[in-house]
Amino acid sequence: MTLSQSLASFIVNTKFEDLPQDVVDFAKICILDWMGSAVAGKDLQPIKIIDDFVRDMGGAQQATLVTGGKSSVAQAAFVNGAASHIVELDDIHRGSIIHAGTVVIPAALAVAEWKNKSGRDLIEAVAIGYEVCYRIGEAVTPSHYYYWHNTATCGTFGAAAAAAKLLDLNTEQIMHTLGSAGTQASGLWEFIEDGAMSKQLHPGKATMNGVISALLSKRGFTGASQILEGRRGFFEAMSKQYDPTKITNQLGEIFKIIENSFKIHASCRHTHATMDLAIDLSNEHDLKVEDIEEVTVQTYQVALDITDNAQPNTVYASKFSLQFCTALALVKRQGGLLDFTEESLHDPVIRGLMEKVKVGVEPSIHEAYPEKWGSSLQIQLANGEIVQKQSEYPKGDPENPPTKGEMVAKFKQLASKLPEKQIQNYINDILHLEELPNVKTFFTIQHQNSFTIIK
Amino acid sequence: MTLSQSLASFIVNTKFEDLPQDVVDFAKICILDWMGSAVAGKDLQPIKIIDDFVRDMGGAQQATLVTGGKSSVAQAAFVNGAASHIVELDDIHRGSIIHAGTVVIPAALAVAEWKNKSGRDLIEAVAIGYEVCYRIGEAVTPSHYYYWHNTATCGTFGAAAAAAKLLDLNTEQIMHTLGSAGTQASGLWEFIEDGAMSKQLHPGKATMNGVISALLSKRGFTGASQILEGRRGFFEAMSKQYDPTKITNQLGEIFKIIENSFKIHASCRHTHATMDLAIDLSNEHDLKVEDIEEVTVQTYQVALDITDNAQPNTVYASKFSLQFCTALALVKRQGGLLDFTEESLHDPVIRGLMEKVKVGVEPSIHEAYPEKWGSSLQIQLANGEIVQKQSEYPKGDPENPPTKGEMVAKFKQLASKLPEKQIQNYINDILHLEELPNVKTFFTIQHQNSFTIIK
Repeated sequence: MTLSQSLASFIVNTKFEDLPQDVVDFAKICILDWMGSAVAGKDLQPIKIIDDFVRDMGGAQQATLVTGGKSSVAQAAFVNGAASHIVELDDIHRGSIIHAGTVVIPAALAVAEWKNKSGRDLIEAVAIGYEVCYRIGEAVTPSHYYYWHNTATCGTFGAAAAAAKLLDLNTEQIMHTLGSAGTQASGLWEFIEDGAMSKQLHPGKATMNGVISALLSKRGFTGASQILEGRRGFFEAMSKQYDPTKITNQLGEIFKIIENSFKIHASCRHTHATMDLAIDLSNEHDLKVEDIEEVTVQTYQVALDITDNAQPNTVYASKFSLQFCTALALVKRQGGLLDFTEESLHDPVIRGLMEKVKVGVEPSIHEAYPEKWGSSLQIQLANGEIVQKQSEYPKGDPENPPTKGEMVAKFKQLASKLPEKQIQNYINDILHLEELPNVKTFFTIQHQNSFTIIK
Repeated sequence: MTLSQSLASFIVNTKFEDLPQDVVDFAKICILDWMGSAVAGKDLQPIKIIDDFVRDMGGAQQATLVTGGKSSVAQAAFVNGAASHIVELDDIHRGSIIHAGTVVIPAALAVAEWKNKSGRDLIEAVAIGYEVCYRIGEAVTPSHYYYWHNTATCGTFGAAAAAAKLLDLNTEQIMHTLGSAGTQASGLWEFIEDGAMSKQLHPGKATMNGVISALLSKRGFTGASQILEGRRGFFEAMSKQYDPTKITNQLGEIFKIIENSFKIHASCRHTHATMDLAIDLSNEHDLKVEDIEEVTVQTYQVALDITDNAQPNTVYASKFSLQFCTALALVKRQGGLLDFTEESLHDPVIRGLMEKVKVGVEPSIHEAYPEKWGSSLQIQLANGEIVQKQSEYPKGDPENPPTKGEMVAKFKQLASKLPEKQIQNYINDILHLEELPNVKTFFTIQHQNSFTIIK
């Protein structure tokens, strides 16, 4: 069997009934988290541009745009893929360096809605799409990542797999789908030098190209049978080293979606372990700002290289200031999208507390990096008492998973533009997705209403 | 100036008035030849599939599909790009190994029609699009070509450049257009192992992605400013060696479209020099088949490696048989798309003559390859006379250019599905394209009628 055949066979043979309960639960959280990111990002400039382009092109009313209304299934995937990556709070898999949600879920959701698929079908396709792109990403990481944006390149295969599953393609058709997906895989890191909008173009186009691949294959369009491992295929052309066993090893036996990491706080990931500790200590000891004499953060060197900034001047910079993030977390006991504001940035209480924050390197934590992104927090109180706590993994990593409640709280912040009732409906529908007979009823109707209301 | 800025500046500053007359004349022939290939390919299976996909997606009625009717400008480019490459008779540039027509012209034509541009605007955009992709292709050839289908990868830049010119983008917007084009560049050769339909997907998607890049930039979407030469850009990621001076050297001073090669005969390029000689000798001496005693072809080794086949069994194989092609050319005095048929394949006159054809290697011709794809033909007649002729370049190469009449004759064969009047109208319109006030009148209306008639 070629790698494409192995993957195609896995895609055809994996059924909802085979998914362990933790995989089903995890997939639902991924979908909730994706929806939050998409709603939070939908009104930002790069998304408005793509949305305007899509409306100009027209298209059949097949699938819902997170920006409102409907378009063709391919173009809906484009808009929704771009929208869900821009606030940089979407999920991430450390092993493959892929944000799977932003490429797999828009493809799956658009096809599921169009084809009147059930919540179970959607969960099945999402779990499969994550699996396919994670495994391809792991096979080519790290060498591929130097030039190529894994989320876009490997993500194209994941989007194609999810779309193919929902279109009920057979093994042969899926092999061709993967061939067409791989020969469209693109997305260079060069844009990062300019901070260009390609960051949104990449997931949008990847998910769209995955959908196109599956829709063409369904009609008999053929692709390379060995797009991954062939002499002039994806591996050889686009990575210095690669390991195909990462694709086949325990394929169908374990589901890697549960290795996913979620971002809870709306700041740089290197500040997260410290923020977790600040929130925990603040809650556990019911700390008041006026009781705090000194705060000592000890972490790994890279965290300081990137986030040691005692005087951030913009909201964006504040997300990359370990001092600010620590103080914010102590004061607010959370650090979501709505907590990083101009008001917070200039809040004299937070600014005052920041001056008491000292940051440094703790050798044992430093040595454990990058496997563990740990931190240690010690707080000296006015009464002489010292409280402290240490962690190895930031909240959201699979080793330190968030609770369902924390993910719901995050969603509420991300989706805060929507009416309260709509937010609650989304949460209820997605957390009970396997009971939903038709995805269309949840995504289209509620969504269209909600966007009609706020426009 | 970055390379993108140099190219953007060239694109903005080049006007129809600056184009030498031979460039204008050449561009018109390219457009005529492209149209013939597109019409000839439009009903083949891969194109029917893409066409069906596009109709399923719907779209605004902006630009004409060669398959009939209209769709969005992006999707029209997709269909027309795919259609124009499939009969393998489209133009080719040796230095960059790019078939520019199949990527540049569908993008230019779709945008020109949509925006009511003139024939002069179309010629200007086509000359610019060819220039951009030829130069990028030359910069990365040959190393890029091992994995990547230059027509698709480099072609994306050419399509983007043509679309950007017709959308009147400024220098800054064009720089972003090129950034978005380069980060979407894709198309691996792996499909060739299976003979898969990716050969059509590549030019179709390349031209569509070029159009998308320009349409996004017009709305303010940004891309990498150094997509070609940047540390993680197109050159470094996708070619072992590259030479940026190929892009800037005499840019705007010479126009490389006139380096284009055309395929006159509908067979493997390695048979062409010999077929030219057979046609010439047959015409010059008014040869009858019964007068011919022996035919001796002497050429380069690669031609024999690929086309020494005395017993072709299919029409496809007959196009790769030097013996068949030589006999066919002697009998029919031409070798276009309509000459390679089941009837020809089994024609006893051609089959009989084939047995008199001997093929071999001529050292001086062999040594001149691959710069020159030459041949020598000697014919022994029944009356004892010997006629012979030799050429260094097949007809269609820039060193042995076809006449306008030969290109018109080729077009008539390629477009033979259309009503005779439509064929003549196309020829008249395209050969006087600079006089046409609005491209729409020629492509939409005549084309729609013609396809309505034949459906």
